[in-house]
Amino acid sequence: MAEALVLLAPGFEEIETVAVIDVLRRSGITVTIAGLLPDMVEGAHGIKIIPDKAIEKVQMKDFDALVVPGGNPGYKNLRRDERVLEMIKDASDSGKLVAAICAAPAVLSDAGVLKNRKCTIYPGMESEVENGGGEFLEDSVVVDGNLITSRGPATALHFALKIAERLVGKEIAEAVRKKTLTEPIME
Amino acid sequence: MAEALVLLAPGFEEIETVAVIDVLRRSGITVTIAGLLPDMVEGAHGIKIIPDKAIEKVQMKDFDALVVPGGNPGYKNLRRDERVLEMIKDASDSGKLVAAICAAPAVLSDAGVLKNRKCTIYPGMESEVENGGGEFLEDSVVVDGNLITSRGPATALHFALKIAERLVGKEIAEAVRKKTLTEPIME
Repeated sequence: MAEALVLLAPGFEEIETVAVIDVLRRSGITVTIAGLLPDMVEGAHGIKIIPDKAIEKVQMKDFDALVVPGGNPGYKNLRRDERVLEMIKDASDSGKLVAAICAAPAVLSDAGVLKNRKCTIYPGMESEVENGGGEFLEDSVVVDGNLITSRGPATALHFALKIAERLVGKEIAEAVRKKTLTEPIME
Repeated sequence: MAEALVLLAPGFEEIETVAVIDVLRRSGITVTIAGLLPDMVEGAHGIKIIPDKAIEKVQMKDFDALVVPGGNPGYKNLRRDERVLEMIKDASDSGKLVAAICAAPAVLSDAGVLKNRKCTIYPGMESEVENGGGEFLEDSVVVDGNLITSRGPATALHFALKIAERLVGKEIAEAVRKKTLTEPIME
């Protein structure tokens, strides 16, 4: 059974976060929502979600993938948290899937995992990934090896489906795409 | 200031629910999340959201719009709740905006507010709205007077933007559409 860890920081972007969790669970992937706060985390638009675990109770070695949602101030809370940066480095070093959307590729950039990697980010934030040595592309979802990045709320379903495809295969991802009425991903 | 009420039933579809709340709040609309349970409501894919208020603490007269998200078993929990059916009737009778997505138009059908109204619903559930006298259309978002219906997770952003447009105007909705990177709505 594939296991994914999704980070939940105060000020997370609600659509991006929830679309990933929803689609991955529809795909049969076990998802753990790790909160930077233990009991309740409030999103950028005031939606309050209860995490499955506190971040200090999870270890990257127990997961196949790490997903970092965007949101403002969510991404700022992520980038100044040493536990988050260590976890991203750990996931990348051990060849696990690392995925970030919207502003969150900036956090991957801080963690030093974007050097010479193709990636994308929310419009206007291109320099954030370029400063970390990333090669910016304008596509909605960019895959480079074990790295998947995407751009914002409206690209979250395609981002999530690409993560699902990598973890459990094209057939399941395609079935979930159809059930959620999502248009085919343009490659 | 426009005020919208969003219902949160156990088994709600997380993407649909969160996309509406997020987009309406981005549009400057005051959104109250009314839980069928008072403290915490768990969605169809295990995401736990804390409602702003319990449903018995809100009155339709204080709002301009009522939004009913889908999800299974969410829509079944909604349709067997007399408070929900009364609230939908009340909103419709008093000419407020009534919006439902995915399986939730079936709940509007039960409440008797679809007679001779153009509407849509999740694929395969067409008879649910037809049994209530509704005229089914296959479009992603259908507007008929004060009634807005839509089809599923991937149509949630367009559904939410249409509600925003009706409550605060095209200009604000268009700005939010661009910030969320949503493609233009096909009319």
